[in-house]
Amino acid sequence: MGIFWSIYQSVMIDFFTTDNTTRLLPVYRQFLEEHVYPIEREVISRPFRQSLTQLQKLREKAKEQGLFVPHLPKEDNGPGLSLIEFAQVSELLGTTPIGHFIFNCQAPDIGNMELMHAFAAPHLNDTYLKPLQRGEIRSCFAMTEPEFAGSNPVLMGTTAVRNGDDYIINGHKWFTSSADGASFTIVMAATDAASSNPYERASMILVPLPHPGVKLLRNIPVMGESGEDYMSHGELQFTDCRVPLSNIIGEEGKGFALAQARLGPGRIHHCMRWIGICQRAFDLMCQYAASRSLGGQRMLGHQQVIQFWIAESKANIQAARLMVLHTAAAMDKFGARAVKEEISTIKFFVARVLMDVLDKAIQVHGALGITDDTILAYWFRHERAARIYDGPDEVHKASLAKSILKKYGLKFERL
Amino acid sequence: MGIFWSIYQSVMIDFFTTDNTTRLLPVYRQFLEEHVYPIEREVISRPFRQSLTQLQKLREKAKEQGLFVPHLPKEDNGPGLSLIEFAQVSELLGTTPIGHFIFNCQAPDIGNMELMHAFAAPHLNDTYLKPLQRGEIRSCFAMTEPEFAGSNPVLMGTTAVRNGDDYIINGHKWFTSSADGASFTIVMAATDAASSNPYERASMILVPLPHPGVKLLRNIPVMGESGEDYMSHGELQFTDCRVPLSNIIGEEGKGFALAQARLGPGRIHHCMRWIGICQRAFDLMCQYAASRSLGGQRMLGHQQVIQFWIAESKANIQAARLMVLHTAAAMDKFGARAVKEEISTIKFFVARVLMDVLDKAIQVHGALGITDDTILAYWFRHERAARIYDGPDEVHKASLAKSILKKYGLKFERL
Amino acid sequence: MGIFWSIYQSVMIDFFTTDNTTRLLPVYRQFLEEHVYPIEREVISRPFRQSLTQLQKLREKAKEQGLFVPHLPKEDNGPGLSLIEFAQVSELLGTTPIGHFIFNCQAPDIGNMELMHAFAAPHLNDTYLKPLQRGEIRSCFAMTEPEFAGSNPVLMGTTAVRNGDDYIINGHKWFTSSADGASFTIVMAATDAASSNPYERASMILVPLPHPGVKLLRNIPVMGESGEDYMSHGELQFTDCRVPLSNIIGEEGKGFALAQARLGPGRIHHCMRWIGICQRAFDLMCQYAASRSLGGQRMLGHQQVIQFWIAESKANIQAARLMVLHTAAAMDKFGARAVKEEISTIKFFVARVLMDVLDKAIQVHGALGITDDTILAYWFRHERAARIYDGPDEVHKASLAKSILKKYGLKFERL
Amino acid sequence: MGIFWSIYQSVMIDFFTTDNTTRLLPVYRQFLEEHVYPIEREVISRPFRQSLTQLQKLREKAKEQGLFVPHLPKEDNGPGLSLIEFAQVSELLGTTPIGHFIFNCQAPDIGNMELMHAFAAPHLNDTYLKPLQRGEIRSCFAMTEPEFAGSNPVLMGTTAVRNGDDYIINGHKWFTSSADGASFTIVMAATDAASSNPYERASMILVPLPHPGVKLLRNIPVMGESGEDYMSHGELQFTDCRVPLSNIIGEEGKGFALAQARLGPGRIHHCMRWIGICQRAFDLMCQYAASRSLGGQRMLGHQQVIQFWIAESKANIQAARLMVLHTAAAMDKFGARAVKEEISTIKFFVARVLMDVLDKAIQVHGALGITDDTILAYWFRHERAARIYDGPDEVHKASLAKSILKKYGLKFERL
Repeated sequence: MGIFWSIYQSVMIDFFTTDNTTRLLPVYRQFLEEHVYPIEREVISRPFRQSLTQLQKLREKAKEQGLFVPHLPKEDNGPGLSLIEFAQVSELLGTTPIGHFIFNCQAPDIGNMELMHAFAAPHLNDTYLKPLQRGEIRSCFAMTEPEFAGSNPVLMGTTAVRNGDDYIINGHKWFTSSADGASFTIVMAATDAASSNPYERASMILVPLPHPGVKLLRNIPVMGESGEDYMSHGELQFTDCRVPLSNIIGEEGKGFALAQARLGPGRIHHCMRWIGICQRAFDLMCQYAASRSLGGQRMLGHQQVIQFWIAESKANIQAARLMVLHTAAAMDKFGARAVKEEISTIKFFVARVLMDVLDKAIQVHGALGITDDTILAYWFRHERAARIYDGPDEVHKASLAKSILKKYGLKFERL
Repeated sequence: MGIFWSIYQSVMIDFFTTDNTTRLLPVYRQFLEEHVYPIEREVISRPFRQSLTQLQKLREKAKEQGLFVPHLPKEDNGPGLSLIEFAQVSELLGTTPIGHFIFNCQAPDIGNMELMHAFAAPHLNDTYLKPLQRGEIRSCFAMTEPEFAGSNPVLMGTTAVRNGDDYIINGHKWFTSSADGASFTIVMAATDAASSNPYERASMILVPLPHPGVKLLRNIPVMGESGEDYMSHGELQFTDCRVPLSNIIGEEGKGFALAQARLGPGRIHHCMRWIGICQRAFDLMCQYAASRSLGGQRMLGHQQVIQFWIAESKANIQAARLMVLHTAAAMDKFGARAVKEEISTIKFFVARVLMDVLDKAIQVHGALGITDDTILAYWFRHERAARIYDGPDEVHKASLAKSILKKYGLKFERL
Repeated sequence: MGIFWSIYQSVMIDFFTTDNTTRLLPVYRQFLEEHVYPIEREVISRPFRQSLTQLQKLREKAKEQGLFVPHLPKEDNGPGLSLIEFAQVSELLGTTPIGHFIFNCQAPDIGNMELMHAFAAPHLNDTYLKPLQRGEIRSCFAMTEPEFAGSNPVLMGTTAVRNGDDYIINGHKWFTSSADGASFTIVMAATDAASSNPYERASMILVPLPHPGVKLLRNIPVMGESGEDYMSHGELQFTDCRVPLSNIIGEEGKGFALAQARLGPGRIHHCMRWIGICQRAFDLMCQYAASRSLGGQRMLGHQQVIQFWIAESKANIQAARLMVLHTAAAMDKFGARAVKEEISTIKFFVARVLMDVLDKAIQVHGALGITDDTILAYWFRHERAARIYDGPDEVHKASLAKSILKKYGLKFERL
Repeated sequence: MGIFWSIYQSVMIDFFTTDNTTRLLPVYRQFLEEHVYPIEREVISRPFRQSLTQLQKLREKAKEQGLFVPHLPKEDNGPGLSLIEFAQVSELLGTTPIGHFIFNCQAPDIGNMELMHAFAAPHLNDTYLKPLQRGEIRSCFAMTEPEFAGSNPVLMGTTAVRNGDDYIINGHKWFTSSADGASFTIVMAATDAASSNPYERASMILVPLPHPGVKLLRNIPVMGESGEDYMSHGELQFTDCRVPLSNIIGEEGKGFALAQARLGPGRIHHCMRWIGICQRAFDLMCQYAASRSLGGQRMLGHQQVIQFWIAESKANIQAARLMVLHTAAAMDKFGARAVKEEISTIKFFVARVLMDVLDKAIQVHGALGITDDTILAYWFRHERAARIYDGPDEVHKASLAKSILKKYGLKFERL
């Protein structure tokens, strides 16, 4: 793994180096090398609950070293990093499938933390956000519905009807990641389905779990694995699910605005992590190419076509990283609204690079590449979703193009 | 599924229509629609042994209708099809993951049947080939070794040493598909490792299973699934495994020649099946595009980019099918040796189309596409191997190019 | 060039061999090798009129050998080939930029011949079609207008107004290929611009050239060359251009229907020719790869990446050829209407292969590839248009997809 | 063009903004808009010498405004920009085919200026470099030979033999850009062809032009145009060409080292310019998409596939720009040797993006795109060379991969 890091620290990355990254990146690296890489394959190949104790110990260790919740400010016991600094930490954690979980900055919890920190009432934050930040509980986010295309946010079948001091929620959600075992969900539901402004129909409401009105129908089998606990994607039925009106996040009718606010940073978080996956896959590809003999001293890496894959992957990863770091730096400086185009851009650009690098790394490994003897096949099947979740590539491309073409004077009925 | 078949029977396919295909294809189709499509998802999502009884019943039904072993001549109880006819049946069976198994023309058994029919001694055929053809037993083929790159056939660690009237076999094999539960394996082993002609070092030897000298170390976890029985890929250890000299297939030292003879048709069999997968994925993609609403009457299929994927997929599948059918027809007419270039060509061309069509079909389905609620995700992860097994695409491309460049006068040390 | 033909006659092509192709293809080949390849570069690098005398002599020679107008039936002094036979001749002629012209089967004349043969009145055919078939005159086809997107056939600014026994035509056309020096043009003009059926607004009218009402504004500079005579693309101004009503082709208001009838076969003619270009570029690429030294005995063709380009090009060309031949055979058997989807498919599929093969052939040649010392650069710049003329790829993809999706029940306002 | 610049100044570019760029970029922009864009098409469509007077006037104007030679330090009458600053100016100048020429920072002169400034003796610099910097003369660089593959620098047929106080040079060069009308050339020739170190065989020697021993055989026809003067690529014959020994640049035997020193920055100069081309092509594509009607208010830009091209182009250009700017910044900070990998990376990455964006911009324009009525077709044919000159993409990919794989311990006989 020594080579890995020396490759990693290329001349380019220095431009984004700060005192924090200089100090912390080596510490995170050492933690990963000592504690995480050695166990990652075991964790992902057995039912997740069997690893909880082991992972909890690592979380404690991370806390002791001040490495826990790297996205949080110091007042919340995080290291207080800027986004450009966190981007580099997150890329690092992304080099292993269990990195973000151990440091409690994993989706969907990180998104819920950000959302609640910005918009939730203090009583919700005391009860739910604080233990979430401390890693004592997990959460989930129930937005997608199987009956309606997610690319059209106006379509939503779940309703939340006021009844006295309560909302009564009915509806059907799926791809509620990590619902199995979560202590609460934030659910998107139509509170005013008849509103003339379709973007003001929905609200976000916190529902504690387990709850008599919420049934986990199944952990959806995704690419052959239903998974469990954190590593699962739940299908939920809400039936006359009653929660207090005060469980609303932000204002009623602002659900879509909150979703945008939540998803924007969420997308860059995914991108950061994807760069880490790319870098690790690239490293595995180079290691194997340099050491797998085709007979005598002739190695795979002497094959020109494999050299080309390595060169093209290097270029693509570098491009992806620069775009993500740049967007992070711009968000630090100008805020999330200013980089809307950039967020869309990196969402589809990095997802494509990710799938391409994984595919090439697998092909270099040959039959070994499709086994679970490396972690490549895990990412190959689970990150296929990268081009779909948080808005499929196609939605982001159309959105970016429309934003550009509007500057050239083209009219759209609606963006 | 009615639309599926009407689409399927485009004007083009008629050029390859014969009396046999006119008569048999509708019968196979009806069988699939009645008995196979309804159970396919259940079969692939539970341990394979739980389906054996159910599948055995279907095999009996297939036998009754004269549809079993469609690759075999009439004297072996098959329908006696030419390769161009079988290609069309095989494509049809390929539209479901369990099609070939039900009709007993699945790899690796079909390859072993062909190999033994051509080269094995009568006593072996009576004992092993006949029950294999009747679907009473299964077999496997132990060639690949984890320690050596398969792209260099000269490298082989497994040895078979003469000892009296026996061979004693020692070695380590993997990706011995369907070893779990097989009644015999054909193993490739070096019988004369010091031969000056590296292509005459190895032989093929039949080993009955279970055997005290053969240990199934594991079913290799591939893309998250170890599988079992027919649906598995075994890792085998041969330790002083003793079998009679008469268990040799063909002559000693001719192992590589036999492997080529076995793999050539094997590759076109895979290609036929892949076309079937493509066609099914295409059908699912079109169905979903035509019926998934984006709101009101606006459907996914009204999106221009999805129209482009459909058009490009149609073109690519058509190209792939024509190339495969053509190669089959040429094999019928000129024999396997004459179409060596064509076999290499379709191996990499169709595998690429396959992955591309699956990828697009999944993307059209969005989140649904990565679940196991359709069969797309199963193929996406299990057919990633299509670009690797039976020679990675890269080996076939280099081989084809060298064959062409030799005609232009370029010298190679060895092809 | 000997290697070229032996490569060319692969095992595959035999399936489309007929007595006619067996007899004629070698004769055409010999003609090209003796008379055409040696002069092609000279012809395309000087003003076209300087070559007319030389080319006319070759046309006479072609007539003497019965090779002229290979698309025409025997009663019109052609060899009477089926489309599948002509496809193979046309591919052959396509291997040189001046092949079709020499044999008088070049666009746009071939399209006009077919159109007039099917739809024009006898008096027009006596005066115009016969000498056109004999190669005594040339023609052009004025359809595209710079002001209106060709992908929307309803938009047309040119009008033809009845005035006594005449039409008076006014309008502005461009990309009227070969207008410079043509003896007549067929012009598409709105004869009933207000028709409630937008597809019945236009008609086709023959206009003799030169004509006082028609001005050749310029030969449009295309990719750096304005060209002249046959090798040019004219921009025409029609100003009160008066021609007799009897100059109409077919019925009034049927212009769009005629255009479709003309363009369908036109598209497959282009595809046949493109395969020829691909094959020649492939041949040049292989020749150069096999003979260009990188130092000592190490040749370009020993580079793996170049081997891959050759293999991929071989596969793509084979796919393209099979699709075109197949479509031709289907047109012979079922007629043009039955293969509408196939025509769209080959239009975009073959155009893409063409550009890809040319690009790779150039890259293999390095600096030489961008010079006019080979014919690759000529095709690279002039065939970029292949993805645009006769309907851009995008129109054909959308059209094909809509045709497919309609079978799946999807409704479109209009196809 | 106003939209162009507002698009151009995206949030991202600000990270590389300095006082110099803030001050100068708007001035360059205004100059281009007032004086250069209006004449660019005229200049590139007529023989270059007809424009010399006109261009000379613009050069004088540029000098008056302190904009001339933007790559030079203040002591040489340049603005004294860092490379990261010049990169942004150069990108801007690259938006027009005549931008660099007007400001006298065009290849090959800029490379010769840098080479001579670093390595040439004062007497050569007084006589040749100073007037070159003042734009009074032009120069060229004779390295490539038609007989030898440029990718192998050891192969060189041109020799320079000492004879008294002179070198006598014999050899054959081509792609000596701008040789026609140049006042001197720097020629690479073997001074010690038998040296045991193949990288120390050649030297660089300055030859004044015209010279009795140097014949301009032709301006090579490239993509249909031989061009003339600055816009040409010469083929030169050196026959007993005698120049003083003191005309050597640097030391004897150091030709390859100097070539590397010259080509490294040369490559980033090309990349900067290519980004400018991309940006302009992107702007033209967006303008056309936003304004070309498909009928009524439906514009090209409402087509989803065109939106996708715009989005993907935006992403790719942004990636390319960030990589180039980053490399420039790294060169400023660490020097050229430290960014060898990055130079190779941007060479092939940006060239690919360039060709892709030009191709899409042309396709959006339809038939107009292949005419010379826009500048896209000029770039399409002339920048095809971008993937070939200064080392084909393939050489850079292999070189980058080998550099990476060496870090992973893979041995190469020689890099």
